[in-house]
Amino acid sequence: MNQTNVPLYRQVIDGLIHRIASGALPPGSMLPSEFQIGEEFGVSQGTARKAVSELEARGIVRRVQGKGTFVTLRTPNEALFHFFRLRRPDGRLETPILLDEELRIRPARADERRQLVDAPGDVVEITRMRALPDGPRIHEVSVVPVSLFPGLMDRRPLPNNLYVLYQQAYGIVVLRAEERLNATTAGAAMAARLGCAPADPIMQVERVAFDALDRAIELRSFNFRCDGYRYFVTLS
Amino acid sequence: MNQTNVPLYRQVIDGLIHRIASGALPPGSMLPSEFQIGEEFGVSQGTARKAVSELEARGIVRRVQGKGTFVTLRTPNEALFHFFRLRRPDGRLETPILLDEELRIRPARADERRQLVDAPGDVVEITRMRALPDGPRIHEVSVVPVSLFPGLMDRRPLPNNLYVLYQQAYGIVVLRAEERLNATTAGAAMAARLGCAPADPIMQVERVAFDALDRAIELRSFNFRCDGYRYFVTLS
Repeated sequence: MNQTNVPLYRQVIDGLIHRIASGALPPGSMLPSEFQIGEEFGVSQGTARKAVSELEARGIVRRVQGKGTFVTLRTPNEALFHFFRLRRPDGRLETPILLDEELRIRPARADERRQLVDAPGDVVEITRMRALPDGPRIHEVSVVPVSLFPGLMDRRPLPNNLYVLYQQAYGIVVLRAEERLNATTAGAAMAARLGCAPADPIMQVERVAFDALDRAIELRSFNFRCDGYRYFVTLS
Repeated sequence: MNQTNVPLYRQVIDGLIHRIASGALPPGSMLPSEFQIGEEFGVSQGTARKAVSELEARGIVRRVQGKGTFVTLRTPNEALFHFFRLRRPDGRLETPILLDEELRIRPARADERRQLVDAPGDVVEITRMRALPDGPRIHEVSVVPVSLFPGLMDRRPLPNNLYVLYQQAYGIVVLRAEERLNATTAGAAMAARLGCAPADPIMQVERVAFDALDRAIELRSFNFRCDGYRYFVTLS
């Protein structure tokens, strides 16, 4: 990857996130001092500070007055399902169960080539059905460039949470997602998948996921019924 | 307000935001240096730096290498409708037109008292109907504590954008909103308001808006039809 256009502090952020993602800096561990970070990455202490401030703003590390900066402790479920925003109306998370999945490699469609990083020729399409305690609830299609995720087909069955796989197996950390939401009727095909009537209301989400370098690395569209659940978001 | 429990850098942030909101520091203007900010607010340069970093992370100011820190330039519409997330599918904003509004003062309900800052006794309830080019589309009910917004009833008719009023008349800047989204059917009453059939799918949003001091200052619920529009959000 060409790093020449990436600001120095973004490179430091990316390096630190890789260490956190790889487990070299586990949750709760102390980050090196800004002076040490500067030495290790060959940047000024000001640049190191800017990188650490950004990690703090993203909730990845936390400064403790007079003690140092620490990798954030999160319960595994909170960390794993940070981008899974469907919750009980009171905010409680029900862990979604993976029912089945289908993977295939196919040429990227024009809109996928336009949106994904490096305009990929081929993509892996991952179609999954998920259940909540009330039964099958979420139909999900994820599309990623083959070039970014070599050997993905051989990793079947994929784990429940794809972003953890992207992080652990490919060093790609999803930090941001842009979503377009639509309230519409299920229609015949989706109703059959979700076990509802074609005229029932469903939520459709189209997501573009961005990594630590702000590259669009995945397109995902998912459909679900909201009865008994809500979709929680923060605007800022 | 009791500021003793508010960290120093939050007080600096609040002070700077007030200057920006009041027009003393207009968009594009240069912020005082961290040294000057430290002097003016009686805090260390490190605290001033932390405040400015936070403003930068929120997109309110922008550092320009070797030049200084500047209040962000935004087009008026982008700034005004930053929290209005309903857009054309391609992301284009259609400015919503205010059709009518009704204001009344009433005792806060138990859930409102529990959620709003300072557990208010009385609230102002603002009910509004908004139109997009396709006709009446959005039904909106906003609830704010009377104590935070004295004289709000006398300001009728309120401007199109309430957050601008909160900022300009009361110095209260909405910086974050937590939302719970639901895809459901309109039902008879809402269908009559939105000009659709009772069985048509609509999006229901329940929002809690937070100010610069992270106080819950407004509860808002709005209902709209998505046909021809999408709701755009960012997860991070």
